[in-house]
Amino acid sequence: MGALLLDSINQPKDLKQLNEQQVKQLCAEIRQFLLENISKTGGHLASNLGVVELTVALHRVLDTPQDKIVFDVGHQCYTHKILTGRRGQFDKLRQLDGISGFPNPNESEHDAFIAGHGNTALSLAIGMAWAKKLHHEAGLVVAVIGDGAFTGGMVYEGMNNIEQLDNLLVILNDNKMSISKNVGALARYLTHLRTTTAYFDAKDNVRSFLDRVPLVGAPLKKNITECKTLLRRAMYHSTMFEDMGFQYIGPVDGHNVEELERTLRTIRNRQGPHFLHVITKKGKGYQPAEVNPGNYHGVSAFDLDGMPDPEVAPKESFSTVFGNALVTEGDRNPNICAITAAMKYGTGLQFFAHSHPERFFDVGMAEQHAVTFAAGLASQGMLPVVCIYSTFLQRSYDQIIHDVNLLRENVVFAIDRAGFVPADGETHQGIYDPAFLSQLGMPLYAPSNYQELNYWLQQLLSDRFHGPRAIRYPRGGQDAALAEFGCTGEDYDFLRKADDATIVLVSYADELADLLQAERELQQKSIACDVIKAVKLYPFTDKMIVDMSKYKIILFAEECIANGSIGEHLEYALQQNGWNGRFIHCAVRNACLPHASVAQIKQATGLDAAHLVQAVQMAVTKGENLL
Amino acid sequence: MGALLLDSINQPKDLKQLNEQQVKQLCAEIRQFLLENISKTGGHLASNLGVVELTVALHRVLDTPQDKIVFDVGHQCYTHKILTGRRGQFDKLRQLDGISGFPNPNESEHDAFIAGHGNTALSLAIGMAWAKKLHHEAGLVVAVIGDGAFTGGMVYEGMNNIEQLDNLLVILNDNKMSISKNVGALARYLTHLRTTTAYFDAKDNVRSFLDRVPLVGAPLKKNITECKTLLRRAMYHSTMFEDMGFQYIGPVDGHNVEELERTLRTIRNRQGPHFLHVITKKGKGYQPAEVNPGNYHGVSAFDLDGMPDPEVAPKESFSTVFGNALVTEGDRNPNICAITAAMKYGTGLQFFAHSHPERFFDVGMAEQHAVTFAAGLASQGMLPVVCIYSTFLQRSYDQIIHDVNLLRENVVFAIDRAGFVPADGETHQGIYDPAFLSQLGMPLYAPSNYQELNYWLQQLLSDRFHGPRAIRYPRGGQDAALAEFGCTGEDYDFLRKADDATIVLVSYADELADLLQAERELQQKSIACDVIKAVKLYPFTDKMIVDMSKYKIILFAEECIANGSIGEHLEYALQQNGWNGRFIHCAVRNACLPHASVAQIKQATGLDAAHLVQAVQMAVTKGENLL
Repeated sequence: MGALLLDSINQPKDLKQLNEQQVKQLCAEIRQFLLENISKTGGHLASNLGVVELTVALHRVLDTPQDKIVFDVGHQCYTHKILTGRRGQFDKLRQLDGISGFPNPNESEHDAFIAGHGNTALSLAIGMAWAKKLHHEAGLVVAVIGDGAFTGGMVYEGMNNIEQLDNLLVILNDNKMSISKNVGALARYLTHLRTTTAYFDAKDNVRSFLDRVPLVGAPLKKNITECKTLLRRAMYHSTMFEDMGFQYIGPVDGHNVEELERTLRTIRNRQGPHFLHVITKKGKGYQPAEVNPGNYHGVSAFDLDGMPDPEVAPKESFSTVFGNALVTEGDRNPNICAITAAMKYGTGLQFFAHSHPERFFDVGMAEQHAVTFAAGLASQGMLPVVCIYSTFLQRSYDQIIHDVNLLRENVVFAIDRAGFVPADGETHQGIYDPAFLSQLGMPLYAPSNYQELNYWLQQLLSDRFHGPRAIRYPRGGQDAALAEFGCTGEDYDFLRKADDATIVLVSYADELADLLQAERELQQKSIACDVIKAVKLYPFTDKMIVDMSKYKIILFAEECIANGSIGEHLEYALQQNGWNGRFIHCAVRNACLPHASVAQIKQATGLDAAHLVQAVQMAVTKGENLL
Repeated sequence: MGALLLDSINQPKDLKQLNEQQVKQLCAEIRQFLLENISKTGGHLASNLGVVELTVALHRVLDTPQDKIVFDVGHQCYTHKILTGRRGQFDKLRQLDGISGFPNPNESEHDAFIAGHGNTALSLAIGMAWAKKLHHEAGLVVAVIGDGAFTGGMVYEGMNNIEQLDNLLVILNDNKMSISKNVGALARYLTHLRTTTAYFDAKDNVRSFLDRVPLVGAPLKKNITECKTLLRRAMYHSTMFEDMGFQYIGPVDGHNVEELERTLRTIRNRQGPHFLHVITKKGKGYQPAEVNPGNYHGVSAFDLDGMPDPEVAPKESFSTVFGNALVTEGDRNPNICAITAAMKYGTGLQFFAHSHPERFFDVGMAEQHAVTFAAGLASQGMLPVVCIYSTFLQRSYDQIIHDVNLLRENVVFAIDRAGFVPADGETHQGIYDPAFLSQLGMPLYAPSNYQELNYWLQQLLSDRFHGPRAIRYPRGGQDAALAEFGCTGEDYDFLRKADDATIVLVSYADELADLLQAERELQQKSIACDVIKAVKLYPFTDKMIVDMSKYKIILFAEECIANGSIGEHLEYALQQNGWNGRFIHCAVRNACLPHASVAQIKQATGLDAAHLVQAVQMAVTKGENLL
């Protein structure tokens, strides 16, 4: 290939010197760069391959940071990072002290905001656009939103609030799917837009009408625009986005960088708010990813000539074990329904979808609707299982309180990715659900291996329970050491028990592996500790409180925000029971966690074995000094 | 008037015998009944006057409980309650042991679900409709949704999930306003629908096309329907609701009961999902409410010939004091913006809207957008103040975590209706915000009188603070006894302090009045207690922990859910500090609170003076026994 053009691009302004031919070459080089790097480090592949031309065009036309590019979700920001001075850091992508896989203003002034949860970009962009207007600042604010996010309600809340924002551009990055295949009325509507507007393709529409319109002579322009609008309405009626007050442009071929640039330049010189509908192809330029973009959404390191290991669906994991167990339960009980919010494969529900399609519901990126929909089903005698990642379940907090809990509807929450998750960073941690679910007194179970997951899922779906209840389990596979303990069916178990220990270490789920390690190290220092594995996190049983009251020192460790956590409730319950020993609570005290491996996150939060050992030693020393 | 027809209507089936003339008379009688009763008890007036004919028509055509009527928000359910056997209970409307002002399945099988928060009806109805399909049950599921709720995103999440639901009917109750005047693109769009479809009025449209179509002979019907659709598209293009997959019918005059019945019968006999657009007038039939529906939204008891006292905007209250104070701060600092989610008057923001219109934003019933929009503003140097009722702020839990807290954006939360609220019941209690905000370590202040509100609002808006912080205050006016303490500017104050007390009573906001009463009663029983008023609820200062560690018994009382509350954090902090006295925590342990006066709710939750006294006495006795 000779000298790479990419090597000369260190900031967005370097892009602006290139001619058309060079731009095409650059896009090819970026694609190659993405493939070479992501196949080594892992990361989000298909979505990034899809927006190479769009991102290049945006940076050719705009001037960040004065102009703002707000990515929705944000895992498609790699080209943006390459073009804004971070090309050299891709070997440490998503690793501790390396660059994040998501935009972050703390990393670069070109990153307008963080993103990780969907649907936020438009609301953020509206805020930025208003701030610019109030401060009389120039610049365009662009929200880049995938079609998947248009199944989430917050986008519509935003669209209702765009009036007067002449400095706002929404780009719909329409790749005909989100992480799972898109569903519902909106997907159908976008298909309709793509097909019925075919004759109005990019060439005819944008070039003929917009580009040739003189930018002086507003009345003429207005007339032509009106003609166009009338013509389009007569032919296939106006779009929903025009109904909401946008000037709709598109669909435009998202891989034609010249066309994109020309359209963006036109938009930049006109008064908005604009809505640009861009058609892209996930995985573009890499045949295996084009054919099977779902498998190349988030990947681990892989051989470019082989198949990657999709991050979202490892071969055996808590998700797949859950998914298979739910099929069996669904066979037994015809009232069981399964609900996912656009994570059919991530939650392991593909099995249930296959065996019980009539009782499987993928509602799109709509966690609020998912929960209230479940309440409606439950009110009529169904037994819905709502399967949502811990971090996204936060979106349903009010619906859980108001629609499920007040009438004690018979809804089961299956919470995947509970606890720390690697690589994605602070926006994806599952560290709030024990706090907000225990607020409501909801029965909450945390299996630490597959056997326990199978057993407790079956229990929770049996007649033993009624009303809201939840089961939560970590991302990925079981820990081998924890698998060995199997399942006793008890609410809690002693994993280690001596006759005379005055110290007990208590935890649940994955953190138990660190606890066992700490116990071994303390043993070597002649400090004997018992270890309790809690499966039922809340409410506490009287027996557990009595059992624990026997100890002088209790260390409770959890991958959960400290305030309002299980450990805090436990300390309170013990104190109310008259216990006055030393309670050491290891939990998350700063929610801004690094993107890193789980082991590194545990180290950063003081939840690794070394920190646990240290905490116990300090308490022992303090206790001795007091004697 | 002679004998009332209404007296003979004890269940929906009694309605079905009436002829057209009698139905009109019945509607008039219901209106009179509503006026007479609500003017005595208070309640929601204007919205109920607006849906008399619609509700009568629904019950004439449908058979509840087999058919389901799911009211969104639900305060417009009075006619429904009158027609379903609860006419005789309106003298105790919204009072303890009386009927609720909202639907509740525990009150009647005709009430499909509870409602209090907006936007839930469609998702619930979809769940019920799917349950019917899966159980092969007959019956239509109807969601009655006001136009205001169409500014909330969850409705769109629901609309994306209606396909296959031939048993679903959405009724848009379009009264051209919600509680505040409607705003944004959707309000404009509905106006457009109302005006451009004028020639397609109820008579021509529904009667000519739908009603005359033979219900046998599907091909013919299909042709005519297609013609109609084509004709409408040619004339003014199809509606957004057709784009989402509904069969759209309307607009229909919501006060023409014959027309409504005929339309509903047609819909019932056809395959859905249907979307019926009904135009109603808030306050219909009562001139003062028609002219000024906002003043007659929620009212206290009033003279039918005079002006009511609107529940949402008493003359002086924490809301109005806040609203006026914010104007002053807005004068001082041009970066201050105020955001409300459809509660301009309820939050006291009408003053700011008047004096700083360019920095005032009413985003509609869109709490999620409100918060993320604020994050966007803050990221560009503005200082947004997000003013939302405590109970509705729950909708923004994830946005607070993800969009405000992770980057520590400079956003101030002003939380109105914090703590218990009377009459509206379990769906409206402001009992979660201290728990979910303290999770994040967010500085949280709770003034107990106007002086403190003024002082602390000014402080929070000063440069002393950066990042997310919150101020919360009760519904209604200040307590006279608490007003007398004024404002010292301290994080906490001793309201009572003896030299030798070993007991301290601690609380914040309104609950302090009960604490002072308890202190007096304990004094009479020769039990001396100090009283601490906390203003800064979180994080705790070291000094406060030290001050409190001197006591043997601490009673902490709060109108907050117990798990994860301020009291729990305090007990934990004290325990970590080595304190091992007796901690009595009086808080809300069952979230299902009755609709009642605040005094009655306090009694039910053990937060009235009598219960506090009892709790202290028990602890003292226990302590003496231990000596």
